[in-house]
Amino acid sequence: MTSREKTATLGFSTRRAPAMARGGRPGSVDRWLAGKLLEASGDPPIAIVLWDGEEVATGNVTPRSRMLVRNRGALLRLFRNPNIEFGDLYSAGEVDVEGDLRVFLEAVYRGVNEAAESASLRSHFARTLKRPRPNTLRGSRENIHHHYDIGNEFYTRWLDREMQYTCAYFPSPAIDLEEAQLAKMEHVCRKLRLRAGETVVEAGCGWGGLARYMAREHGVKVRSYNISHEQVAYARQKAEEEGLSGRVEYVEDDYRNISGDFDAFVSVGMLEHVGTDNYPQLGGIIDRVLKDRGRGLIHSIGRNKARLMNGWIEKRIFPGAYPPTLGEAMRIFEPFDLSVLDVENLRLHYAKTLEHWLDRYENNLEWVRNNFDERFARAWHLYLAGSIAAFTTGSLQLFQIVFARATDNELPWSRAHLYQP
Amino acid sequence: MTSREKTATLGFSTRRAPAMARGGRPGSVDRWLAGKLLEASGDPPIAIVLWDGEEVATGNVTPRSRMLVRNRGALLRLFRNPNIEFGDLYSAGEVDVEGDLRVFLEAVYRGVNEAAESASLRSHFARTLKRPRPNTLRGSRENIHHHYDIGNEFYTRWLDREMQYTCAYFPSPAIDLEEAQLAKMEHVCRKLRLRAGETVVEAGCGWGGLARYMAREHGVKVRSYNISHEQVAYARQKAEEEGLSGRVEYVEDDYRNISGDFDAFVSVGMLEHVGTDNYPQLGGIIDRVLKDRGRGLIHSIGRNKARLMNGWIEKRIFPGAYPPTLGEAMRIFEPFDLSVLDVENLRLHYAKTLEHWLDRYENNLEWVRNNFDERFARAWHLYLAGSIAAFTTGSLQLFQIVFARATDNELPWSRAHLYQP
Repeated sequence: MTSREKTATLGFSTRRAPAMARGGRPGSVDRWLAGKLLEASGDPPIAIVLWDGEEVATGNVTPRSRMLVRNRGALLRLFRNPNIEFGDLYSAGEVDVEGDLRVFLEAVYRGVNEAAESASLRSHFARTLKRPRPNTLRGSRENIHHHYDIGNEFYTRWLDREMQYTCAYFPSPAIDLEEAQLAKMEHVCRKLRLRAGETVVEAGCGWGGLARYMAREHGVKVRSYNISHEQVAYARQKAEEEGLSGRVEYVEDDYRNISGDFDAFVSVGMLEHVGTDNYPQLGGIIDRVLKDRGRGLIHSIGRNKARLMNGWIEKRIFPGAYPPTLGEAMRIFEPFDLSVLDVENLRLHYAKTLEHWLDRYENNLEWVRNNFDERFARAWHLYLAGSIAAFTTGSLQLFQIVFARATDNELPWSRAHLYQP
Repeated sequence: MTSREKTATLGFSTRRAPAMARGGRPGSVDRWLAGKLLEASGDPPIAIVLWDGEEVATGNVTPRSRMLVRNRGALLRLFRNPNIEFGDLYSAGEVDVEGDLRVFLEAVYRGVNEAAESASLRSHFARTLKRPRPNTLRGSRENIHHHYDIGNEFYTRWLDREMQYTCAYFPSPAIDLEEAQLAKMEHVCRKLRLRAGETVVEAGCGWGGLARYMAREHGVKVRSYNISHEQVAYARQKAEEEGLSGRVEYVEDDYRNISGDFDAFVSVGMLEHVGTDNYPQLGGIIDRVLKDRGRGLIHSIGRNKARLMNGWIEKRIFPGAYPPTLGEAMRIFEPFDLSVLDVENLRLHYAKTLEHWLDRYENNLEWVRNNFDERFARAWHLYLAGSIAAFTTGSLQLFQIVFARATDNELPWSRAHLYQP
């Protein structure tokens, strides 16, 4: 696999090993801590290599990956709070991984998932878990700014042409990312049964690609809400260039301020930022703005079981993010007379999307290093590879939920229309 | 519409008006009670006709149906507990409906649904709601016996040839019931991705039609559990006649006693009888018997909002029944590493299925009267017409939920295979 080969040759570890005090030769306490760390992670097939080259492994399997811990301080931080510290230490180069980062992360995810049933491990990790940062109107603005307003050019380097920063749809795994993102937008439009002349409201529009696609390919009028200033500016300029300004309106505002009457409600990749406490409020907004025969679609990362987002990702990459279970997502709909018509789980489509992103990202690594710094470059590399692992191991899911009003009887008799050429 | 015309000519009311004491001429208290009853039902476009012919109506709309209340006792019982008493009084002929029963019931459902948001009505009805009868091992046996062991011939009079007493699948609304039940079974098999030689366990098999279809058309081995003695006897005989005994085993036992290892788990129309308290236990059984690459499907009546089954249906027709919301149904999967892949809501397919059943039922009304009695005939007529109304007004849903283990990555890339000719 291309991305695996590339990762193996990145060689962050040798080139950027930090010149820090290493805290003396490892002793029996260090070895004990390393062993406990592996045990608490469900004994994955991983060896921990201490700063003098000594290897610690547990379990009966041959280690498939090696994690290099550069000094005692890093080991102590890992032991205290692996959930958050691994990412920070990896970004700083104080911890490294020999071989394919994704394979290493998949082994960790599998181990932790299997061990998650054990009470002792739960309590170990539970201590280090905190609620995500609150998504108040102001909190959301800060959370979103943190991730999305780091310069559009960074994202153009590894996203598709339509700047879709959400799971693509691969009806065949052989199609490329550009085709798969177009296929995703078409899949969403078909699920919404859009007809020319209808009106659509979009909650969280990223760089506005879906809104332009809907207007251009399905002849609808779209109003899209987003609180990321840079994304809205980009989206407006694109719509202008494509002559779609009259049919697509980008509003720099919170989804909680949506108003109007619409034939369709769509939200792709925003629910992760909403927070379960706000789900009934989101449902209320949908209930308020959807016409009697309106349809809706929510596309979101999710979980099989309720669990907080990986602590490091929530802290460093996506503040305030929380992927809900399907049960939790139902809190949007169940307080209202909204009827869920269709749920599709596209988990492996997100793994494949991320593989494409990681590939492109690695091809632009020099640019990232030059425009940000090594720590940033390593952090994003870890985030993309870790996200692949989360989807391939079943830690994360991707749900597309289609809904309508309970009283709407003008429904298609089957979903065959989604699969017509 | 055929069924509407037929209903209108049934003429239960005139032929079977009860010769009871009528409690004297209606007075102002009776009129007040009738008005309050309509108000508490959300002011549907219905008039109540008292036993002297006097009409009471509320709201601003012209009544589209008339409910005849034959005496004061009936009015008092209706007022005290409409949820349960209407069905009993209708069955006994002490309350009747002029015109199409289904249209009347749809109006009532719509009124009650709309008014359900109002606190005063909620409290009025809440008083009359009770938990469904418990589904302990013994309770389930009694509950199931009540409904399913009233003689197979009764059901052969109005079900399809395969005796499918669950929602059919109408990829086109024009196909007939026989085709639609075959289409349902095929749809289920495709969702399960059955391959010849695989093993399937079925929880709740009715008269065994799906098990025989899977074995015959997809070459799998099936073990089906059911606690209805009459159904199991029928199913075994049919399998024998069709030469399928070697490949289909019917076990007269509770789903909680399922054991073995299977490639697929399927349950069509049993979850309604399980009770939410038992969902994690059901999930544990699935988790125990499903192989690593196993798939599962649960097909069940459901709700958009949590609400008890209509009291009369729960009491007289389906003891212990409770249709869950999708959120409640997730309690089966979320305690385990089971991943929901696909949910399809077939609400209008159940309305159409019931229309076919009602049509056939009405054609066999003389037979039902002769083999049971008038009260039974009216009760089942009400149950079938009321179920149509529950589905057409969105009070009930029909969910098909497909799932697999979280770690299974051999998933199809799209659902197009469900829609190939």
